Amino acid sequence: MSRGVNVAIIGAGLVGSAFINSLQSLRLSSITYNVILIARSSKALVSKQYTPLPLKTWSSDLAAASSSALSPGDLAAYLEKSPLPVILVDNTSNEALARVYPIFLQQGVSIATPNKKAFSSELGLWTAIFKASANLTGDAKRGLVYHESTVGAGLPVISTLKDLVATGDEIVKIEGIVSGTLSYIFNEFSTVGDDEVKKFSDVVMKAKELGYTEPDPREDLNGLDVARKLTILARLSGLEVQSATSFPVQSLIPRVLESVEDVAEFLTKLPEYDAETEKLRRDAAAEGKVLRFVGKVDLNPGVSERVTVGIEKYDASHPFASLKGSDNVIAFHTKRYGKNPLVVQGAGAGAEVTAMGVLADVIKIAERIAK
Amino acid sequence: MSRGVNVAIIGAGLVGSAFINSLQSLRLSSITYNVILIARSSKALVSKQYTPLPLKTWSSDLAAASSSALSPGDLAAYLEKSPLPVILVDNTSNEALARVYPIFLQQGVSIATPNKKAFSSELGLWTAIFKASANLTGDAKRGLVYHESTVGAGLPVISTLKDLVATGDEIVKIEGIVSGTLSYIFNEFSTVGDDEVKKFSDVVMKAKELGYTEPDPREDLNGLDVARKLTILARLSGLEVQSATSFPVQSLIPRVLESVEDVAEFLTKLPEYDAETEKLRRDAAAEGKVLRFVGKVDLNPGVSERVTVGIEKYDASHPFASLKGSDNVIAFHTKRYGKNPLVVQGAGAGAEVTAMGVLADVIKIAERIAK
Repeated sequence: MSRGVNVAIIGAGLVGSAFINSLQSLRLSSITYNVILIARSSKALVSKQYTPLPLKTWSSDLAAASSSALSPGDLAAYLEKSPLPVILVDNTSNEALARVYPIFLQQGVSIATPNKKAFSSELGLWTAIFKASANLTGDAKRGLVYHESTVGAGLPVISTLKDLVATGDEIVKIEGIVSGTLSYIFNEFSTVGDDEVKKFSDVVMKAKELGYTEPDPREDLNGLDVARKLTILARLSGLEVQSATSFPVQSLIPRVLESVEDVAEFLTKLPEYDAETEKLRRDAAAEGKVLRFVGKVDLNPGVSERVTVGIEKYDASHPFASLKGSDNVIAFHTKRYGKNPLVVQGAGAGAEVTAMGVLADVIKIAERIAK
Repeated sequence: MSRGVNVAIIGAGLVGSAFINSLQSLRLSSITYNVILIARSSKALVSKQYTPLPLKTWSSDLAAASSSALSPGDLAAYLEKSPLPVILVDNTSNEALARVYPIFLQQGVSIATPNKKAFSSELGLWTAIFKASANLTGDAKRGLVYHESTVGAGLPVISTLKDLVATGDEIVKIEGIVSGTLSYIFNEFSTVGDDEVKKFSDVVMKAKELGYTEPDPREDLNGLDVARKLTILARLSGLEVQSATSFPVQSLIPRVLESVEDVAEFLTKLPEYDAETEKLRRDAAAEGKVLRFVGKVDLNPGVSERVTVGIEKYDASHPFASLKGSDNVIAFHTKRYGKNPLVVQGAGAGAEVTAMGVLADVIKIAERIAK
C-alpha cells in the first residue's frame, strides 16, 4: 500500500508557485503528496475533508476562492485533525508565521521552509523551534523542521553543514558569498585584470534594472540578508549568536544617506559617494586583488570576532575572485577536510532553485513520517 | 523513550576503522547506535545476544576474536533475528559481498556503503539492488540503500544528484574530476603559467611515493576507478549504462606496457613514453590551457557518446584549472541551474572523509527506520 502525507502550503508568490509546479513533476516517488491547503496573504483554498486539492487549476482556484486567509490559530486547529501526517510548507518570509513554528511542531506538524526569519531572529526563537521539534528530541509525536533554502537556496549548504557537525567533524571556518545580489554587484564592480573604471553606483543601478535587487536596493546593500544567513550558519556551527545584529555587519549604504526615505532620492544621491568604494577597489587592484562581500564564521583560536559580514579582498587566483553572475559560494574549512575546504557553488537565489530546496526537504521529511 | 538501530560493520581497514572511531564521536543524536558485529576478511566479533559490543576496545577485541569471518548466508541468518532494525555497513570494496545486497535488502536489512562495485558492475545488479530496496518501492519491509561515498567520498555528490532528479530538474551535463590520484597527477603535471618542464612519469612516481596511488599505480592510470564512478552518476541521471566498460575510457597506460606484469618493471619503462603526454601538455599550454583527467555524462541532444572518461583541455580561467592537491570537483549543469553549474569541490578520497560520508548515510537511514 502506498504511503502518503498531507501538505499545507502558505505563500503563493514566486517561490510558492514554483514549489507547487515542481510538486507536480516529482519523480520516482513511492509517497503520495496530498495538497490540502494553499494560502496567500488574503485568500485560502482549504480542503475541509482533507481530500487532495486539484493542482492543475490551483492558481485560478485560489484567485476565485471565497475564504480569506486563516489565522495561525485556525491553521493549527485545521492541521491538528488531519488524518495523515502533515508537512507545513512556509514559502513566505513572514516573521509572524515563523514565531508560531514551535506550536505547529509541538502539535506534530512538520515544517519545510526557506523563511530565514524563523532561524535568524533572536536566539530564543531558534531554541524554541528546535526544542519543540523531533529533530533533536527524537520524539515521534513532534514535527520535524528542515530549512535547506534559508542559505544558498537549493545548494546543499545546510545539509552539508549539519552532516559535518553530526558526524563529529570540527568546523574551523566558514566563508561565503551568500547574497546573489551582492555577488553580482561585486563580480561586476571588481574584476580580475579589468582596467575599465566602473562606478559602484552604476553597477547598483544596473543590478536594479536587471531585477537582481529588491525593489528598494538598500535592503540588499544594508548587509542584513547576509547577516541573517551567517546567523544560521554560525548557530549550526555551535555558536550562540543572539541575533543577526549582534556581530559586525558592514553596510554599503553611505552613512549620510541612511536617513533618506525615498528610494529614488537615495539612488540619485548614491553616485556622490562613489569615491570611497573606488578607492577600495583601486587599492585592492594594486595588490592584484578583488573585492567581494563576504560572510565569515571563524572558530580559529584567538579570533576576536567569530562572525563578520563585510567587504574582503581576495587574490586573483582565489576561487571567490572568479565567481560568475550572481552565484553563491560557500567554503567549509574543517578539521577533517584539512588544508583545502569543502566548497559548494552555484545559483543561490531565484524562485526555481529555492523551491527545489524546499521540495527536497519535503521529500526527506515525507520519507521519515509518511503513513 | 530513545529509539535505536543495530549496526553490523564489515571491513575494518582504513575506512572501517575511521568509521568506528567517528561513530563514537556522533553528536546531537537522539538515536542509539548499537554495534552488534564487526568483521574483517578473516575475523569477526559477533554479539550473539544482539547486545552492543564495547567500542573502545574494538580493535584489540577483533584481533583476539576466535570466530572466523561469516559467510554471507550466515550473516543474513544472524541479521534476520535482530530485535531492532539493522543497518549493514559495508566498508569493503568486495564484489562478492555487493552481489548479496539484494538478499539483505529483501530481508529488511538496510545498507550504507562506499563500495563502488555494487553500483558500477553490470546493470542487472544495479536493478536488482534497487528493486529489492525500499528506496523506490516504499515497502517498509525492505531495507534502504545509501551510497554517498561511492563518488567523491563525503562530498555531497550522490545526495545532490538524487535531489536534483527527484525534484524534477533535468540533468544537461555532469563533468567532474573524481579521482584524487589523477587530480593530483594532472594538477602537478599541467599547471597554469608554469613553464617548468615536467615528465609525466616523474609525477606518477612522486604520487606513488606520497602514497596517493594504489600500490600498483596502474589501477589508477587505467581509468577504471573513474569509469566506475561515472557509471554511478550516469545511472542516477537516468542512463541505462550496461557496465563501467561499455563507454569510452582513456587509459593512461601506454599500450605497449599493458602486457607488463611486474609493477617495478612497468615503472622503469614508463619514462620511455613521456613524449606523448609531453606533447599533449605543450599543445594545451600553447592555447593557454591545461590538461585534466575528467569524466563526463552528457545528455545534450545530438551528443554521440553520453558517457566518456579521459584527458580534456581547460582554459586557465576554468575552475578545473585551479584545482589544488588531490581535490575532486563535480559540476552539475541542469535546466534549473541554467548557465552556471552547481559545483561541489573538496577532498574526494581518504579514510576520514569517506567514513564521514558513510556515517552521514547511517544517520539518515536510522532517522527513517529506528525503533
